[in-house]
Amino acid sequence: MSEKTIEIVENTISRRRFIATAGLTAAGLAIGATTFGLAGCSTAESVSEAPILPWQYKELDPLAAAKRGYDGYFEGACCYGVFDSVVGQLQDRVGAPFTGIPTAMMKYGEGGVVGWGTLCGALNGAGAAISLVTDSETYAKVINELMAWYTQTALPIYVPEGQSAIVTSVSNSPLCHASVTKWCDAAGFGAMSPERKERCGRLTGTVAGKVAELLNAVAAGTFTPSFGLAESVTGCMSCHGKGAMNNTLGKMDCTSCHKPHNGG
Amino acid sequence: MSEKTIEIVENTISRRRFIATAGLTAAGLAIGATTFGLAGCSTAESVSEAPILPWQYKELDPLAAAKRGYDGYFEGACCYGVFDSVVGQLQDRVGAPFTGIPTAMMKYGEGGVVGWGTLCGALNGAGAAISLVTDSETYAKVINELMAWYTQTALPIYVPEGQSAIVTSVSNSPLCHASVTKWCDAAGFGAMSPERKERCGRLTGTVAGKVAELLNAVAAGTFTPSFGLAESVTGCMSCHGKGAMNNTLGKMDCTSCHKPHNGG
Repeated sequence: MSEKTIEIVENTISRRRFIATAGLTAAGLAIGATTFGLAGCSTAESVSEAPILPWQYKELDPLAAAKRGYDGYFEGACCYGVFDSVVGQLQDRVGAPFTGIPTAMMKYGEGGVVGWGTLCGALNGAGAAISLVTDSETYAKVINELMAWYTQTALPIYVPEGQSAIVTSVSNSPLCHASVTKWCDAAGFGAMSPERKERCGRLTGTVAGKVAELLNAVAAGTFTPSFGLAESVTGCMSCHGKGAMNNTLGKMDCTSCHKPHNGG
Repeated sequence: MSEKTIEIVENTISRRRFIATAGLTAAGLAIGATTFGLAGCSTAESVSEAPILPWQYKELDPLAAAKRGYDGYFEGACCYGVFDSVVGQLQDRVGAPFTGIPTAMMKYGEGGVVGWGTLCGALNGAGAAISLVTDSETYAKVINELMAWYTQTALPIYVPEGQSAIVTSVSNSPLCHASVTKWCDAAGFGAMSPERKERCGRLTGTVAGKVAELLNAVAAGTFTPSFGLAESVTGCMSCHGKGAMNNTLGKMDCTSCHKPHNGG
């Protein structure tokens, strides 16, 4: 057993402000203080804040992101797969403050939240990851673009090394169960089959790669949205939106679930 | 300017293992090491992991949780409101490792993810919060119960102090746009009205309070699920689920969007 000594110089500015200025996980120092007996120092309360968002992003390789997303799917499903791909790589490459977030916290999003079939977990994990590294004006635009791309693109695109491409389908919906059904109908495999799980693994990889691509574009100042909303959204919303009826909200393709009724 | 000295005793077990065993935000020590010049200690890499989930929960008052959820809605919408109510209170009361998570990361869930109308943000924020403090066998059961309760209960229940109750509605769906439409139809207010926003604020408070109640029950060892799935789920899934067709998955009430077709 060896002993090591650290000297901490306490400046005239408050510890809290110093830590915030330095962009650190203040939580950390609190731990040091409480665990290792930092006599006479500030309490945990005064140093216990994560830095304000957004945090500094570092460019990620989209292919590496796709691979980690795909692998992550088989560890903790779709939502975790995308979140861990982006945030986990930033933990590895940047360290703190990303390391204060346990990426396993997003596992609940699997199968549209513990199997309920609501929002596709890959999109949910992507939303949380994007929120960490983009400002409040940007994240909505990036997530919006991701959601529109997802619903209008034949997926999955990612093919693991040494394997072959599989059947793709356009979901017309960001919802898990609708996306799964579209693929099952196109591919002829069951929703509970290993082939469908492989499809969702590749979808997770594809979304993770797309998130890296979008965030790289934001970082480079070249991000431009290229996907519009489905036609039905503007059509149906001309009555159901802010107009005459004003009785719903959303950007999902209405006709993927509801029959168009032309004002009937 | 004053000087303070900390002594760190390095045990024969690795620092990484020691920190994991003690349940600490390892990221924190890494910061201490890099910022305050911890000579001869491990690199950031070796101590940069958040403790493995679940983290220790501390009982929350459901009414206080509801109030903070309601207030949070007006700061950062529904998903943030619930997440910040639960995790923010644990940050205040427990400190690290909860303090390593910026609760603003869940703002993206508002309006069913940046206004898309998918999963109700209150449920999404709840899922993330519950995942932090319950083990992998428990979180799915708790979230499942929350989702079933949400879809079958007349909401909102929470009434801010000094105010009156408002019209309630049963959503039959965990989806934002469906939940909003049901309430607008019942209350006679528009989806973009201040009254609907007040309803979503109270809904956020109600869900936050329910999460505290469920987590308190888990902590006390008294948690028992009491809400079953909608009848249509078992009915429709007898064909569309693992049975003959095996072409979808999920636990949402099918008939809230799709017409029952009785095998047609």
